[in-house]
Amino acid sequence: MGFKVSLLSHTPEPEKVVATAAKLCYSNTSVENIFDRLDDEAIKNFLSFLVEIGHQSPLEHVSFTFGIEGVSRSFTHQLVRHRIASYSQQSQRYVRLDGFEYVIPPSIEEDEELKTIFEDTMREIARTYRVLTEKLQEKHRAAFVSKGFSDKEAFKRAEKMAIEDARYVLPNACETKIIMTMNARELLHFFGERCCNRAQWEIRSVADKILEIVKEVAPNIFRFAGPKCIKLGYCPEGKFSCGEFEQVKKKYLGKREKDENN
Amino acid sequence: MGFKVSLLSHTPEPEKVVATAAKLCYSNTSVENIFDRLDDEAIKNFLSFLVEIGHQSPLEHVSFTFGIEGVSRSFTHQLVRHRIASYSQQSQRYVRLDGFEYVIPPSIEEDEELKTIFEDTMREIARTYRVLTEKLQEKHRAAFVSKGFSDKEAFKRAEKMAIEDARYVLPNACETKIIMTMNARELLHFFGERCCNRAQWEIRSVADKILEIVKEVAPNIFRFAGPKCIKLGYCPEGKFSCGEFEQVKKKYLGKREKDENN
Amino acid sequence: MGFKVSLLSHTPEPEKVVATAAKLCYSNTSVENIFDRLDDEAIKNFLSFLVEIGHQSPLEHVSFTFGIEGVSRSFTHQLVRHRIASYSQQSQRYVRLDGFEYVIPPSIEEDEELKTIFEDTMREIARTYRVLTEKLQEKHRAAFVSKGFSDKEAFKRAEKMAIEDARYVLPNACETKIIMTMNARELLHFFGERCCNRAQWEIRSVADKILEIVKEVAPNIFRFAGPKCIKLGYCPEGKFSCGEFEQVKKKYLGKREKDENN
Amino acid sequence: MGFKVSLLSHTPEPEKVVATAAKLCYSNTSVENIFDRLDDEAIKNFLSFLVEIGHQSPLEHVSFTFGIEGVSRSFTHQLVRHRIASYSQQSQRYVRLDGFEYVIPPSIEEDEELKTIFEDTMREIARTYRVLTEKLQEKHRAAFVSKGFSDKEAFKRAEKMAIEDARYVLPNACETKIIMTMNARELLHFFGERCCNRAQWEIRSVADKILEIVKEVAPNIFRFAGPKCIKLGYCPEGKFSCGEFEQVKKKYLGKREKDENN
Repeated sequence: MGFKVSLLSHTPEPEKVVATAAKLCYSNTSVENIFDRLDDEAIKNFLSFLVEIGHQSPLEHVSFTFGIEGVSRSFTHQLVRHRIASYSQQSQRYVRLDGFEYVIPPSIEEDEELKTIFEDTMREIARTYRVLTEKLQEKHRAAFVSKGFSDKEAFKRAEKMAIEDARYVLPNACETKIIMTMNARELLHFFGERCCNRAQWEIRSVADKILEIVKEVAPNIFRFAGPKCIKLGYCPEGKFSCGEFEQVKKKYLGKREKDENN
Repeated sequence: MGFKVSLLSHTPEPEKVVATAAKLCYSNTSVENIFDRLDDEAIKNFLSFLVEIGHQSPLEHVSFTFGIEGVSRSFTHQLVRHRIASYSQQSQRYVRLDGFEYVIPPSIEEDEELKTIFEDTMREIARTYRVLTEKLQEKHRAAFVSKGFSDKEAFKRAEKMAIEDARYVLPNACETKIIMTMNARELLHFFGERCCNRAQWEIRSVADKILEIVKEVAPNIFRFAGPKCIKLGYCPEGKFSCGEFEQVKKKYLGKREKDENN
Repeated sequence: MGFKVSLLSHTPEPEKVVATAAKLCYSNTSVENIFDRLDDEAIKNFLSFLVEIGHQSPLEHVSFTFGIEGVSRSFTHQLVRHRIASYSQQSQRYVRLDGFEYVIPPSIEEDEELKTIFEDTMREIARTYRVLTEKLQEKHRAAFVSKGFSDKEAFKRAEKMAIEDARYVLPNACETKIIMTMNARELLHFFGERCCNRAQWEIRSVADKILEIVKEVAPNIFRFAGPKCIKLGYCPEGKFSCGEFEQVKKKYLGKREKDENN
Repeated sequence: MGFKVSLLSHTPEPEKVVATAAKLCYSNTSVENIFDRLDDEAIKNFLSFLVEIGHQSPLEHVSFTFGIEGVSRSFTHQLVRHRIASYSQQSQRYVRLDGFEYVIPPSIEEDEELKTIFEDTMREIARTYRVLTEKLQEKHRAAFVSKGFSDKEAFKRAEKMAIEDARYVLPNACETKIIMTMNARELLHFFGERCCNRAQWEIRSVADKILEIVKEVAPNIFRFAGPKCIKLGYCPEGKFSCGEFEQVKKKYLGKREKDENN
C-alpha cells in the first residue's frame, strides 16, 4: 500500500501522565508528588490495574498527532466520522489537483484488465478536471476583471471558484493528506472498530499502522489494543463475523507476547 | 438545485423547553411549575433575554432531525466535519450504485459545452463502476463458493466486496442521502459558518433551506440566525470578505421583519 | 428517596426515527419512503437486528429531556461528568438558598443518632449561610450605592455577590434541580456505568428511574439496557465486583420478560 | 489565593504543530516538508493569518495538561461543565477527608467576624464528618465480617461506604485537586467565558493563571486571549456588563504589548 503515516507529535511521557491522572483520583498527596515519585515499574503496574478495572478516562489526557498521506477520499470520509478527534485536511476547494494521484484497491491492481480500465477512467477524469478548471477559471476571471478587481486578484478568485466546481468530477480514489489528533482513549475505540476484519481494507491498514506506531511509544497503554473481539474475548458481529477469531487474536496479542520477551 | 431537505422529527414545543431550562437556572420553583406556567408571551420574552445575554446552553435541549437527499458526496464530506451532530448516511460499501445520480454544479450546467464534458465523464465512470463491480463480484463469488459458502451467501458477500472496491471510481458529484440530527445551539453555529457567502455553494444552499425550515418551527430561537456577520454586526473574514454585508443583512434580517409583520 | 424525575420532552416516535436512520445506510430508496413504510413489526425487527450487530450510531437521533429534582449537589457533580449530554442547573450563584432542603443518605437517616448529628450540622450551616449572606449583602450594597447605583440595582448586585460567596458553606447534601438532555446511545452508556451496583447509591437510584421511564417510551431500544454486565454477560469489575450477577440479571432482564408477556 | 496551577505536560512545539496543520489545508506538499521548513518567523506570520481569518480548527491539535490544586468543589463543579476537555479529580468517594482543607472567599476572609463564623462552621462540619465516618464504618464493617469477608477487606469496603455517605456534609468550600487537559481552541473559548469580570472570582483567578502559563509556552496562539470582549471589541453582556472595558483591555492586551517589547 502506498500510504504513509507519521507521528508528528504526542504528549511527552504519555504513560506517566496517564498514571498520574489516575492516581490523583484515589490519593491525598499533591499532583507534583504523584508525578515525581512514579517510576517505570509503578507506572506499568498502575496502568495494568486501570486496564483491569476499565477506568478509561485518564487515557484522555494524552494525545497523538499523525500525518496521514497517500490515502483516498473514501478513507477520509470514513475517518472523519470519528468525532472525538481533530482533523486538518488538504482542501480540494483550495488546492488545484491537476494530474492528481490516486489509490488503486489491491483487488483491482492485481488484475491487469481491471487495472487498465481503472487507470483509463482516472486519466479521463483528470482530463475533464483540467478542462473544467481552465474554462471555468477563464469565465470567472473575466467577470472579476469587469467588476474592477486587479488581474492578479481576479486570477486568484477565479481559480478558487473554478476548482471548487471542477472537483465534482474527482473520484473517491483521489489521494489526499490529513493530519489527525486523537487521544489514547479514543484511539482504543478506533482500533476496536477499524482493526476489525469487517472494516474496509484501507482504513484497516491505516489503523494497523497507527497501532504499530503508538505501541512503540506507549506499550502499556496499548498492550491489549486491537479489534473489539480482542478485549471482549469473542466476536460480537453475529452472522457477519469474519470467523477468524483465533488468527486475529494471534495477530494482535501474538505481537504483544513477542514484545514482552524482548 | 435538485436537493431535498425534510424535517423528519424534532423536540416538541422547542421554545417552551428551552425557556424552561433557562428559567430553571435562576429560579427556585419546580421544573413542572416553570414548564406549566410559561405562556407564549413569556416564552418569547425570555428567549429574547437569552439571546441578549448570550446564554446559549439551554438551546442544546432541543434538536432537529433532517433527511437530506439529492446532495453530493462533496457536500456530505464537509457536513460531517460538524462534530456536534449525529449522522446516518447511505453507504457506498453496502448500496450498489449502478446508474448513479449526480449533482452538477450550476456553473457547469449553465454552459452547454462544459455540461456535455461533465456528463460524458459521469457516463464513463458509471460504465467503469459497472464493469468493475461485475468482474470483481464474479471473482470473489468463486472464491467464497470454493470456501464452502452457499451460492446465495457467496453471492452476497462477493457483491459487498466488489462494490466496496468499485466505488473508488465514483465521483464527488455522486448523489447521496443523509439523516442529520443537530441541536439548536449547534444549528446556530452551523448557520454562522455555512450561510456565509464564503461557504461553498452546495452546503450554503442546504444551510439556507434548513434555516428556512427551523425558522417556521421555532421563530424566536432562530430570529437572528444567519452567517456570523449578522450577529457580529461586521464581517470577520478580513480580506476574504464577500463585501456584500448590506445585502446579506437584508437577506437574513429582512426575512425576519417580514415574518414579524405577519 | 425523595428525588423526582420527570420526562419533560423527547423525540416523537423515537423507535421509528432510529429505524429509519439505520435503514437509510443500507437502502437505495428515499428517506420519506423508508419512514412511511415502517410499521411496528418492521421497526421491532430492525431494532433487534441493530442491537445484534452493535450498530449504535442511529440511536443518537433520538433524545430525551428530564427534569431531575430533590437530588444533592454530590449527585449533579457526578452527573455532569457525562459530557455527551446537555445540562441546565439551578445556580447557587443566582438563587438564594435560605433554609435550603437537603438529601440525607439512607444509612444516616435510618440511624437516629447519626440523623440527629447530620441534621444539627445542616441547621448550623443554614444559620451561617444566612448570616454571611446578610452581612455580605449589606457591605456590598453600601459600596454599590456609593458608586452611584440606584438603591434597587445596588440591592440586586449586592445580593448576587453575597450569595455567590456565602454558598461556600453549603454542603454536598444541598438539594438542587437539573434539566438533562441525553440521546439514546449515551443513555445506554449511562445505564451501563450507573445502574451498576458499584455506582454510588444516589446516581444509581436516579439512573434506575430514568431507565424505567424510557423503557415505557421506547421498549425496543432499551430492551437490554442496564449495568454493563448485562450486555457483556459477565462482570468486568474484577476484584471490585459486587458478586451478585444473577440478581442483577434478574432485576434488569426479569423486568423485560414480564413486559413481554403483557 | 492559595490555589496552585502547574503545567504538567503539553504537546511539544505547539505553534509549529498548529501552523503545519493549518498549512496542509492549502498546500500540495507533504506533511513532513511543511513541518521541516517552518521556521519561527513563518510560524508567527502564519498564526497571525489564522487569527485574522478565524480559522480555529488547527488549534485543536495541541493540548495542555494542568494540575490544579487548592481549589474548592464550587470551582470544579463549574469547571467540569466545559465538556470539550478531560478531567481526573480527587474523589470524595475514595479519599478520606478527615481534617479537610477549605477555600475561604476573600470577602469573608478580610472580615474578622465573618471569618470566625465561617471557620467555626468548617470545624463543626469536620467534626460531624469524622463522627459519621467512624460510626458508619463500624456498622458496615460488622456487616461485611458477618458476610464472611476477611477483617482487612471488611475494613476497606466499610470505609469506602462510610466516606461515600459522610461526604454529604462536606461544604462547597472543601479543597480538591483536579487534572485537566484542554486543547488550545477550547482554552480560547474558556478564557473568553471565564476571564470575564462577570465570571465568579475563583474560576476567574484560575483562568487568569492558566492564561499566564500558556502565553509563555505559545505566545502567538494566545496573543489576543482573554474575556470575549477583547476579541469582539465590545462587551456582549448588555445590562450585566461590568462597565470596565478599557481596564479589561489594558489588563489583557497591555500585558501583550509589554511582552512584545522584551
